[in-house]
Amino acid sequence: VIGVLGGMGPEATLSFYAKLLANTPAVRDQDHLRVVIDSNPKVPDRTAALVGAGESPVPMMAAGLEALARAGADFAVIPCVSAHAFLAELRARSPIPVLSILEVAAEGVRRREPSLRTVGLLATTGTVRSGAFQAPLAAAGLEVRVPAPAEQERVMAAIYSIKGTLGRAERQALRDALAVIARRLVAQEGAEAIVLGCTELPLVLADAELGVPVFDVVLMLARAAIVAAGREPS
Amino acid sequence: VIGVLGGMGPEATLSFYAKLLANTPAVRDQDHLRVVIDSNPKVPDRTAALVGAGESPVPMMAAGLEALARAGADFAVIPCVSAHAFLAELRARSPIPVLSILEVAAEGVRRREPSLRTVGLLATTGTVRSGAFQAPLAAAGLEVRVPAPAEQERVMAAIYSIKGTLGRAERQALRDALAVIARRLVAQEGAEAIVLGCTELPLVLADAELGVPVFDVVLMLARAAIVAAGREPS
Repeated sequence: VIGVLGGMGPEATLSFYAKLLANTPAVRDQDHLRVVIDSNPKVPDRTAALVGAGESPVPMMAAGLEALARAGADFAVIPCVSAHAFLAELRARSPIPVLSILEVAAEGVRRREPSLRTVGLLATTGTVRSGAFQAPLAAAGLEVRVPAPAEQERVMAAIYSIKGTLGRAERQALRDALAVIARRLVAQEGAEAIVLGCTELPLVLADAELGVPVFDVVLMLARAAIVAAGREPS
Repeated sequence: VIGVLGGMGPEATLSFYAKLLANTPAVRDQDHLRVVIDSNPKVPDRTAALVGAGESPVPMMAAGLEALARAGADFAVIPCVSAHAFLAELRARSPIPVLSILEVAAEGVRRREPSLRTVGLLATTGTVRSGAFQAPLAAAGLEVRVPAPAEQERVMAAIYSIKGTLGRAERQALRDALAVIARRLVAQEGAEAIVLGCTELPLVLADAELGVPVFDVVLMLARAAIVAAGREPS
């Protein structure tokens, strides 16, 4: 039984669940995996806590992991990258193992593109400042390029916008603004691929044409969860 | 906290969750409602049990309702119409209240189209034979027309197909086949609206042009859950 500590944000959790179903080989209901989702959008803002301006999300997330375990989950995933800056604390308090989206993503990038040396990372300001994603990418032998401070502010503003209700034109404008930053990392900083290192970013940027490989951490986490549940993803 | 006893099928649960988010007014994560989902596709086939050929799904569903309560749900919804043929038994065993998709849908049809007298019902063979949906529709003052036996077999086959992996062409073919049956209920049986009385049907038929109002029970259940959680749907 897969446990999903979700709601951070809810659209990212929905997208994770959709990718989990789409990547599970199935012709009837009973071929699918059992999944328990606690979508708790009331968890305090992760980025606010990471940049020192907000309440810790750890107690509510730890309570959520306990709730998932009580509901029968054997292990948990968290479709929110920023939350992973608190992973060591969460793992220490969780009654069930927690898969790391950071480790899954770093290994997935390395496996799919073994010759890559430098990647660009788009993520929340909290994730970037905490260094939580740079560490496993570096451990996988990858150099990491991040946006300049003014660009990073635009990335963070875009992520908060994605969490609201977007019209088609707004979505397109956000995609274009993010693509400009991603393309600069490629053209000027030597990034050979872009890691969408926040679960909201694939919601607008997964199919953007950036001219280099684009890694969707939500998709990688979904496929890793299927493997951890003992099945082969389709 | 909204509890969702899901997985019957998983795509219907995904669609329910998507409609819940889309109908909740929100500009940031924290504006959304907490939702706990137990997506358990291993529940025995509801239609097989209803037509007398399969194991009862009640014990596993009752266990799921207990798991939702343990995880913190205040009430539950079940995005599977056929499962509602067992609702009285489930309610008797559930530690938390269970909203009925049948009652929600019958009231919703009546409220949105007060002048309707006759509706066509597309649903699983189990739902149709059990009469579970005809009763609340009749209680709302609506006459119900159902497909002829040969048509009903095609509706049931289509529902099982929707539960598998569909290509674009297959999806279109299923939609066309179902639309033929719906149009006959309108043209020959006097149906003034079509109730999509199975949570899989809106996945292919929600935007079909049938020339009469089409009611999506998944959408009606999502909006009712938002109301039951104390919010106004958008």
